[in-house]
Amino acid sequence: MPQNKQIHLVNRPDGEATVSNFQLVVTQTPALKDGEVLVRHHYMSLDPYMRGRMNATKSYAEPQALGETMGGGTVGEVVESKNAAFPVGAKVFGMGGWQEYSVVTPAAIAGGMLRIVDTTHVGLSHYLGAVGMPGVTAWYGLVKICTPKAGETMLVSAATGAVGSAFAALSKSRGCRTVGIAGGAEKCAYAIEELGFDACVDYKPHTDAGSLAKAIREACPNGVDGNFENVGGMVLDAVMLNMNAFGRIALCGMIAGYDGKPMPLSYPALMLINRLTLRGFIVSEHMEIWPEALKELGTMVATGKLRPRESIAQGIESAPEAFLGLLKGKNFGKQLVKLI
Amino acid sequence: MPQNKQIHLVNRPDGEATVSNFQLVVTQTPALKDGEVLVRHHYMSLDPYMRGRMNATKSYAEPQALGETMGGGTVGEVVESKNAAFPVGAKVFGMGGWQEYSVVTPAAIAGGMLRIVDTTHVGLSHYLGAVGMPGVTAWYGLVKICTPKAGETMLVSAATGAVGSAFAALSKSRGCRTVGIAGGAEKCAYAIEELGFDACVDYKPHTDAGSLAKAIREACPNGVDGNFENVGGMVLDAVMLNMNAFGRIALCGMIAGYDGKPMPLSYPALMLINRLTLRGFIVSEHMEIWPEALKELGTMVATGKLRPRESIAQGIESAPEAFLGLLKGKNFGKQLVKLI
Repeated sequence: MPQNKQIHLVNRPDGEATVSNFQLVVTQTPALKDGEVLVRHHYMSLDPYMRGRMNATKSYAEPQALGETMGGGTVGEVVESKNAAFPVGAKVFGMGGWQEYSVVTPAAIAGGMLRIVDTTHVGLSHYLGAVGMPGVTAWYGLVKICTPKAGETMLVSAATGAVGSAFAALSKSRGCRTVGIAGGAEKCAYAIEELGFDACVDYKPHTDAGSLAKAIREACPNGVDGNFENVGGMVLDAVMLNMNAFGRIALCGMIAGYDGKPMPLSYPALMLINRLTLRGFIVSEHMEIWPEALKELGTMVATGKLRPRESIAQGIESAPEAFLGLLKGKNFGKQLVKLI
Repeated sequence: MPQNKQIHLVNRPDGEATVSNFQLVVTQTPALKDGEVLVRHHYMSLDPYMRGRMNATKSYAEPQALGETMGGGTVGEVVESKNAAFPVGAKVFGMGGWQEYSVVTPAAIAGGMLRIVDTTHVGLSHYLGAVGMPGVTAWYGLVKICTPKAGETMLVSAATGAVGSAFAALSKSRGCRTVGIAGGAEKCAYAIEELGFDACVDYKPHTDAGSLAKAIREACPNGVDGNFENVGGMVLDAVMLNMNAFGRIALCGMIAGYDGKPMPLSYPALMLINRLTLRGFIVSEHMEIWPEALKELGTMVATGKLRPRESIAQGIESAPEAFLGLLKGKNFGKQLVKLI
């Protein structure tokens, strides 16, 4: 029974999240019962949505319970099994949380919470990113909400993140002018040179929506037809000022407001004036599109059309700092923690 | 050639609109050219959208030109004709504007801007209200955006207006709990007793969104599935706090912001948390649904299922005051000006 290090949430943030909200706990993995599987995690995923779950207020997901291991996606290898469907050595994706090992129960397996993945052409870690939840999130927002037509302009904030990079590849393959918003010249250069964006706007020099809107206008001379929103706040205000008539906005995240500061939408009348559609969504509620999306994304990664960048922190102890960095945009590409 | 009184827009409002923005001008109707029709207006329509056109800033419609007759819908009778399709005596709907007579050109006729209406079962004035643009607006927002299912709760602000009263009849006929928001106890009583609303919230006692939200919650114990928004500002904020997951909001008007005061949406994160869809629309861009909508609305009025109330001002000179009253909610039902 190997030792298992876990990160628990021990108190809730008052405003900004800090490392003191988390605690490292060392346990032993328990003996398996019939039907159970022990997974050793190779990578765990850090995602912005986790910040929302740290608050006590109910959002679409239940709050993360105090005194328990932080939840989250993981990929790894079956190291012990009492379930014939998941033999030792199988590479798997699951919701193992912020820990080195997880025991997956028959109930969780029955709920589809453990899945064998094919690592022949796609690296294991990508099942937490481009060929996982972030990639499918980009796919749903683009295909089902932004409904791109060739020649239109598609915009995504947090452009170099896991969602943004997948969005770029998917949007370009549909013949759209594809523009990103990212923080800093280095990220913007990377977005254009490596991710295939046609243009990228650095939001950092801008302190008001009007100034940022002007920069977006230069990058989107024909206006914006579809926007995938990861940020909210001033960024969304600036995007709204550039939306074309009948534009579509997929609301996926509002990371700018996760610390609880009020974050109004400044120009809601633009929704009316430009007959915009805004739609919030959670990709886990649209499981019917996952196979189609994963197939397209897996093919893109396997053929090199999508080469997602990863920010990899080393060791479970690094997870809280890496997570707080993610919330501040310090990551560059999909934020992972490597555990092995 | 009869005398024709017109109301011109002579300057633009700085903040609130005032009577000094308008001027009465007396002209003569010109001699008709071939293909033209002279219509004597019986009623002209006053609508909130006209306030938006008084500003110089381009909205979805071009600004109202200065020194010209205010635009708007009219119903009347053909009194002189050089067009065989529109004989003298025909009752017609058109966009005649704020004047007693209008000359309709062949080009306007070719563009569908003059239509003979059947007054056998439906009074002429209703073609400016329940069986006209406001009714079709309610129909589109309800049927195409709020997508009501029997048993759901549908909410509409400006409940006793032309749009709100049509919305109520259409929503009730689809088996929905139908709740209105209106200003004052008298309007609320009328909404319930005469228009068929299940409940009506008086917004006037409330000075903040939280307080109004609580009152809406009492009227909508199962939350709100569809909202037809005519007001914006604090009212929309309060509605947003009551939207159910997967709720739909049709954005038709934001009368609260027409005077140019900033009017942010305070809780945009709710769009994400509750996976809401918000969509702005203009009914004139969806001509394909007009026949179906007008048929349902016409039948409802003809059979007495929808008995729309009208606020009727007398004489062209009364139009500016009546219009400013409409913007302040002083009207009770569809605001018209009777010209004959």
